[in-house]
Amino acid sequence: MNIDGQAWRTIGLEPGGRSVWVIDQTQLPHRFCTRSIGSCEQAADAIRTMVVRGAPLIGVTGAYGLMLAMQEDPGDQSLEAAFQQLNNTRPTAVNLRWALERVRDRVQQLPPADRVEAAREEAGRIADEDVAMCSAIGDHGLEILQQLAAARSPERRGKPFQVLTHCNAGWLATVDWGTALAPIYKAQRAGLDIHVWVDETRPRNQGASLTAYELGREGVPHTVIVDNAGGHLMQHGEVDAVIVGTDRTTRRGDVCNKIGTYLKALAAHDNNVPFYVALPASTIDWSLDDGVAEIPIEARSAREVTRIQGRMLDGQTVAAMAEVQLTPDGSEGFNPAFDVTPARLVTALITDRGVADASESGLRGLYGRG
Amino acid sequence: MNIDGQAWRTIGLEPGGRSVWVIDQTQLPHRFCTRSIGSCEQAADAIRTMVVRGAPLIGVTGAYGLMLAMQEDPGDQSLEAAFQQLNNTRPTAVNLRWALERVRDRVQQLPPADRVEAAREEAGRIADEDVAMCSAIGDHGLEILQQLAAARSPERRGKPFQVLTHCNAGWLATVDWGTALAPIYKAQRAGLDIHVWVDETRPRNQGASLTAYELGREGVPHTVIVDNAGGHLMQHGEVDAVIVGTDRTTRRGDVCNKIGTYLKALAAHDNNVPFYVALPASTIDWSLDDGVAEIPIEARSAREVTRIQGRMLDGQTVAAMAEVQLTPDGSEGFNPAFDVTPARLVTALITDRGVADASESGLRGLYGRG
Repeated sequence: MNIDGQAWRTIGLEPGGRSVWVIDQTQLPHRFCTRSIGSCEQAADAIRTMVVRGAPLIGVTGAYGLMLAMQEDPGDQSLEAAFQQLNNTRPTAVNLRWALERVRDRVQQLPPADRVEAAREEAGRIADEDVAMCSAIGDHGLEILQQLAAARSPERRGKPFQVLTHCNAGWLATVDWGTALAPIYKAQRAGLDIHVWVDETRPRNQGASLTAYELGREGVPHTVIVDNAGGHLMQHGEVDAVIVGTDRTTRRGDVCNKIGTYLKALAAHDNNVPFYVALPASTIDWSLDDGVAEIPIEARSAREVTRIQGRMLDGQTVAAMAEVQLTPDGSEGFNPAFDVTPARLVTALITDRGVADASESGLRGLYGRG
Repeated sequence: MNIDGQAWRTIGLEPGGRSVWVIDQTQLPHRFCTRSIGSCEQAADAIRTMVVRGAPLIGVTGAYGLMLAMQEDPGDQSLEAAFQQLNNTRPTAVNLRWALERVRDRVQQLPPADRVEAAREEAGRIADEDVAMCSAIGDHGLEILQQLAAARSPERRGKPFQVLTHCNAGWLATVDWGTALAPIYKAQRAGLDIHVWVDETRPRNQGASLTAYELGREGVPHTVIVDNAGGHLMQHGEVDAVIVGTDRTTRRGDVCNKIGTYLKALAAHDNNVPFYVALPASTIDWSLDDGVAEIPIEARSAREVTRIQGRMLDGQTVAAMAEVQLTPDGSEGFNPAFDVTPARLVTALITDRGVADASESGLRGLYGRG
C-alpha cells in the first residue's frame, strides 16, 4: 500500500538476494525506516522484538529466516535448529509454524547445495501468495460492506459507513493489503464513503500507532479511540460493522486475536452490530475445536502494561522517543497477549475463498477439510 | 485510609478554616503532595483539571468552593455566579449539583454576614456524611464478598478471592473509604484473602495510577491489567466478582460510570461473574429512566487519547514527569468519558442503606422514593 504516494510491501529481498529488508514497525508511527536482516538469528530477533508482527508477516519472515540459515549452514542439523529457533519466537502464531514447515519440507529433500535457492523461492512464493490471499479477502469483504451500506436506514445512509477495528490486521501485519483492513482499502478505492474507529489496543498500541499510520498514509478517514470506548459507540449507533483479524482460528470458528477482541464481540452482539473476522487459510488450526479451552495464551512482559512508549513532546525531532512508567513503584502487572472470541459471537468469517459461517460446516464448505 | 502508615482524607480545612487542602491527584502515583485552595476560582479549577476527581469528592470540593465564594463576596449575585461556575465544571456529575444545591439552599436564606460560617458547616457536614456513607457501603459489600467467598467451589477456596475493578472508585474518589473499594478494604481488614485486578482505565489511567496507588498503600494485593484483559480473565475463572462505582444512576438502576464499564459488565454477564455497582444515594438521579437514551455523555479532549503522561525512566527523581504522543501526526481522537451499563447487566447495587436489585423497585425499597 501507499506511503507518501509510493507503493510498499512490508518485506522483500535486498539486491543480490542474500539478505532481507523489513519495515521496522517498532519505530512507527513516528519514524519510517527499514531494517536489514542478514542472519537467521536476526530474523528470530525481528520476530521476537516485534520489528515485524502480524501472523502472515511473521510467517514470511520466518520463511526467509530459514533461507538465511541455509546460507550460514545448509546441513540438516542447521535446518532443524533454525526451525526450532524461529518457531519458538511466537508460540501462538500457527501460520509461523505453517510457513516454516512449508520451507523445511521443500528443502530437506534437496542436497545441501540447492537448499538456499529453494528456500528463497519458497519464501518468495509464500509472500506472493499472501498478497493474493489478502487481496481476495478484500474483494469478499468489499461485497459485505457494500451490502451493509446499501441496507442502512435512510437517515444513516447520508453518513459515512462506520467500521470499528481492533489492533492492526492491516497491510503492515501482512505483506500487502492486510486482512481486516483489506476490505476497507477496497471499499475506499471503490468509492464507498467510509470512516474507521481505531481501537488504540493496549498494551502495545498497535491500533494507535500502526493502524492509524497506514490508514492515514492511504487517506482513509479514521479516528483513534481508547479500547474502552467501542461499546459506547455501538450503543449509540455509531458503528455499522466490526472487522478484526485473527492469529489462530479453530475448526469450529473460534478466533484467537489480540487481547480485548472478545469484549468488542460481546458489545457488537449486544447491539446487533455485525462482527466479522478476516483470515487467510493459514490461520486455521484444524486440530483445535474449543478455542477458550484449548488455545494456550502467551503472557508477555508485565512491563508492556506498567510502561508505554511514545514520542516526546519537546519540539525535538521525531526521533526523540521515550518510555514512561504508568504505575506506582511496587504494583505488578499481568499481560495476556490474546483472547478467544467464541464462534457464537462471530457473524461471519471473511476468507480468501469467500465468506463462511463461523462454524465447522462453514469452514469445511470453503476448504474441503474436516 | 493509610499512606505510609498515616491516616488521610482527600480534603480538609486548613488551619483557620478560610482555605482548603486537597491531595493533588494529578501528581499520583509518582508524587504525593497536597494543594491549597483559597478561592472559588481555584476550587472550580481543581475540579476541571482533575486535581480532585470522583463524584463524591467533586461534590465536597464544590461545597467548599461555595464557602470560598462567600468569603470573597457573600451577596446573592456572587452565590449564584459561584453556583453556576462550579456546576459547569463537570456536567455529568449529578452529586456535584446536589452538593451545591444543598449549600446554596442553606445559605441563601441567611443574611450575608452569616453565610461563610453556614457554608463551612454545611460543606463539613457533607464531607462527614460521605465518610459515613462509604463506610456503610463497605459494610454491606463486605457481607456479599464473604458470602461469595464461602460459596466458592472447594478447589477455588484455597486461592485468593479475586475482584476486578475499573477506574478509581476508591477513597481518593471520595473523602475516605471509597465506594467500590470500601468493601475490599473492609474485607482485607476482616481477614479475607483478597486480590484485586486493576483495570488501568484509559485514557486517564486512574486505575493504573490511583487505584493501584491506594491499594498498595493499604497493603492490598493487586495486579494492574490493560482494559482489554478482563474478559479473558473471566473466561478462565480468574475473577470471582466485579465491583465498580457510578457517577450517575437512573431510577431503574442503569449506571453511568467511566468509559469501558459496560464492556466489563457484558463480559461478567457472559461468564456468570457477579457484577456489583457501589454507590451513595447522591448519585441516584430519580428524574432519569433509560440511561443509554437519556444521559448526555461528556466528550473530553482528544489529547487524552493521543497522548499519555507518565514518569520518565531516566533514573531521575520521581518529579520528572513527561507526556508522550501515541498516535501519528494527523490522526484525530475521540474521547467519550463515560458509558452506561444497563440495569439488566448489574447483579445488584451496593448502597449505604443496603443491597438492592438494580431496578426501580429495588431502589425505591431502600430509599422510599419513586
